[in-house]
Amino acid sequence: MPGLTLALDAMGGDRAPYPAVKGAVTATEALGVKVILVGAEPKIREELDRLRVRGDLSARGLAIEHTDEVIGMEDAPSSVLRGKRNASVGVCARLVKDRRASGFVSAGNTGAAMAAAVGVLGRLEGVHRPAIAAYLPRMDGSFSILLDVGANVDCAPEWLQQFAVMGDEYAKFLFGIEQPRVGLLSTGEEKGKGNEQTKATFELLESLPIPFVGNVEGRDLFSGRADVIVCDGFVGNIALKVAESLAETMMKLIKKTLTKNPVRRIGALLSRGAFREMLKIADYSEYGGCPLLGVNGVAIIGHGRSNAKAFHNALGVCKRYVEQNVVGKTQDRILALQAMRSVS
Amino acid sequence: MPGLTLALDAMGGDRAPYPAVKGAVTATEALGVKVILVGAEPKIREELDRLRVRGDLSARGLAIEHTDEVIGMEDAPSSVLRGKRNASVGVCARLVKDRRASGFVSAGNTGAAMAAAVGVLGRLEGVHRPAIAAYLPRMDGSFSILLDVGANVDCAPEWLQQFAVMGDEYAKFLFGIEQPRVGLLSTGEEKGKGNEQTKATFELLESLPIPFVGNVEGRDLFSGRADVIVCDGFVGNIALKVAESLAETMMKLIKKTLTKNPVRRIGALLSRGAFREMLKIADYSEYGGCPLLGVNGVAIIGHGRSNAKAFHNALGVCKRYVEQNVVGKTQDRILALQAMRSVS
Repeated sequence: MPGLTLALDAMGGDRAPYPAVKGAVTATEALGVKVILVGAEPKIREELDRLRVRGDLSARGLAIEHTDEVIGMEDAPSSVLRGKRNASVGVCARLVKDRRASGFVSAGNTGAAMAAAVGVLGRLEGVHRPAIAAYLPRMDGSFSILLDVGANVDCAPEWLQQFAVMGDEYAKFLFGIEQPRVGLLSTGEEKGKGNEQTKATFELLESLPIPFVGNVEGRDLFSGRADVIVCDGFVGNIALKVAESLAETMMKLIKKTLTKNPVRRIGALLSRGAFREMLKIADYSEYGGCPLLGVNGVAIIGHGRSNAKAFHNALGVCKRYVEQNVVGKTQDRILALQAMRSVS
Repeated sequence: MPGLTLALDAMGGDRAPYPAVKGAVTATEALGVKVILVGAEPKIREELDRLRVRGDLSARGLAIEHTDEVIGMEDAPSSVLRGKRNASVGVCARLVKDRRASGFVSAGNTGAAMAAAVGVLGRLEGVHRPAIAAYLPRMDGSFSILLDVGANVDCAPEWLQQFAVMGDEYAKFLFGIEQPRVGLLSTGEEKGKGNEQTKATFELLESLPIPFVGNVEGRDLFSGRADVIVCDGFVGNIALKVAESLAETMMKLIKKTLTKNPVRRIGALLSRGAFREMLKIADYSEYGGCPLLGVNGVAIIGHGRSNAKAFHNALGVCKRYVEQNVVGKTQDRILALQAMRSVS
C-alpha cells in the first residue's frame, strides 16, 4: 500500500512523455509514493511497455489519467483555463483540487502551470501574487534561492515583502536551516542604492522578523551572501537567463577550445573528471524542481529539459513538500505578516 | 610634434598610478598622442623613473598635471563637484572643458567620472540622461553593447529611446558597421512581453529609423541577436554583475577542480592554451574602455582593474573617438530625434 499519491504531467518537458514516465517508475519504488501519470494514455503505455512495466499498473504504484490536450510552449498560459481546459497540467491541478492527489509535478510551460495552479487551486489567503523561485548553485557547493523569476513584473513593494516571507519558509524546508539569510537584489549594498521599488521594499524587509542582510548585488547570486534573494520578476527572469546562458556558452566555449588540437584533446581527456564535477554543480536534475509559492496547494515545476532523474527528484521534492506541510506553514506566515501590518 | 592631447586620470584604478603611467608611456609612442598624466606628481615621477622615462617629459609626449586629491570607490560621486573639486578625475574633465585636452580616460570610480563629466562638460543638447555602456563578449568572437549599465534607474521610456540612438551611434563607431541591430532587453521576444516600462519603450523604438530587432532576452546578451541592447540602468547593472561574477566563479571552479589530483593537473597543463584563449575572450584590457554617452565631450571609462595594456587601449579608443567626432554625430542624432518627435 503506497503512501501519498502525486499527479505527474507526463506531457510536459522535452521528449515527453519518456523522461516523465521513467522518472515515475523509479520514484514509486524508491520513494514509496503512488503516481498518477496525466497525458495521452497510448503514448504513456508505449513508454511503460518499453520500460517493461506491463500488466497491473496499480501493483507498481502507477495510474494513468488520460487526456489528449497539451499546452505547448507557444500557447498563452491562460489557455489552460479557457480553450484547453483538459490540458495535462490543468488535469493535474484538478486532481489536487479534488484531493485525488496531494500535489503535482510539471516540466511543461511554466506560465501555464502557474495559470492552472492559481485558476484551479487558488492563492493562499492574503497572498497578492504567487511567485516562482529558482536555484542558483554556489561556489561553496550549496545554493541560493532567487525569487521571483518571471511570474510577476512591476511588483508593488508589498508583493516583494511577501516573496521574502514565502522564500524564507521555502528555504527553511529546502536547506533545513532555522534562519535563512534574506537579501534584496539591488545595484549597491548601501540602503540608499537601487530604484524606487527596492528603496521602498528595503524598509518593508527591515520590518520583518527575519535575518535581512540588506541589499545584495548581481555578483551575490553566487557569493552566498544570502540564502534567499528577493527581486521583481522582470529582473529575476533576466538575471536567471543571463546566468543560464552564460554558463552554457562558457561550457561550449571550453569544449570548442579544448578540442582544437590533439595535445589539448589529450589534456581534456585527462581532466574530464573535473568537467563532470563542474557540470554536476550546475545540473538542475539533481534538484528536481521548484514549488510555485503562494499557491493553495503543492505544485512543483521542473526544468523544461528535465530528464528521468530530474522527474524522479521532482517527485521527491513534491513528496517532502507535502509531508512537511510547507503550504500550511507559508499560509501561517502570510497571515502573521498581515496581522503585523494591520497593527503597525 | 604629437597630434591630439589626451588627459589621463593616473590615480584611478587598482594599483594606481603604475598601470596608468605605463599605459601612457607606451601609448604616446604607439599612437602618436600627447598624454597629460593627472595626479600626485611625486608618485607619477616615481613610476616614470621606474620605467626609465627621465629628463624632458615633453620630448616623450608626456606632461604632468599635479593634484593631491583622490576620489575613492567609497566616496559619493557628487563629492567630485563639492568637497573634492581637485580630485584627479575632476581635473581631467576641466582639462577637456578648457580645451587643453581633447578627451580624458579614467579607470576610477565610474559614478564620480560621470558626475565630473556631466558637472564640468555638461550634457549634449536635448539629452535627458547620459548613459554608461558595457561590452559583452560573444561566442562568435565579436561582442555586443549593453546600455545603460548603472548610471540611471527608473528610466522614462524617452530616456531609453535616447539610449538606443546613442548606443547605435557608438556601435557604428566601435564595430565599423552601417546598421547595428538594436534590441530591447525584456522577458520575452513577443511585443507584449515585459513590464510597463519596456512595453512603452518598444513603441518608441519601433518608431526610430534604425534596425530594431524587438525584444531580446537575458540569454541574448551573448547570442548575438542584437549589437546594441537597451535597458534600464538598474537591470543593466544587475545583468552585468551577474555575468561578470559568474564568469569569474566558473573560471575559479575550473581551476579548483582541475588541480585536485595529479592526472588532472597534467590534463590542465596540456590544455592550458585553451584556457588562455578563453580568458582572452573575456579580457577587458583588449577593449580598453567605454565612453560616457550623451556627455558634451569625450570621456572614456576603463575597468577598475585596468592594467597597463588596458590603459594603452583606452587611450587608443579615446583618440579614435575624438578623431571620428562621435560626440558631434551623437549630438546630430539626438537633435534629429527631437525634431522627429516634435513633428509626430
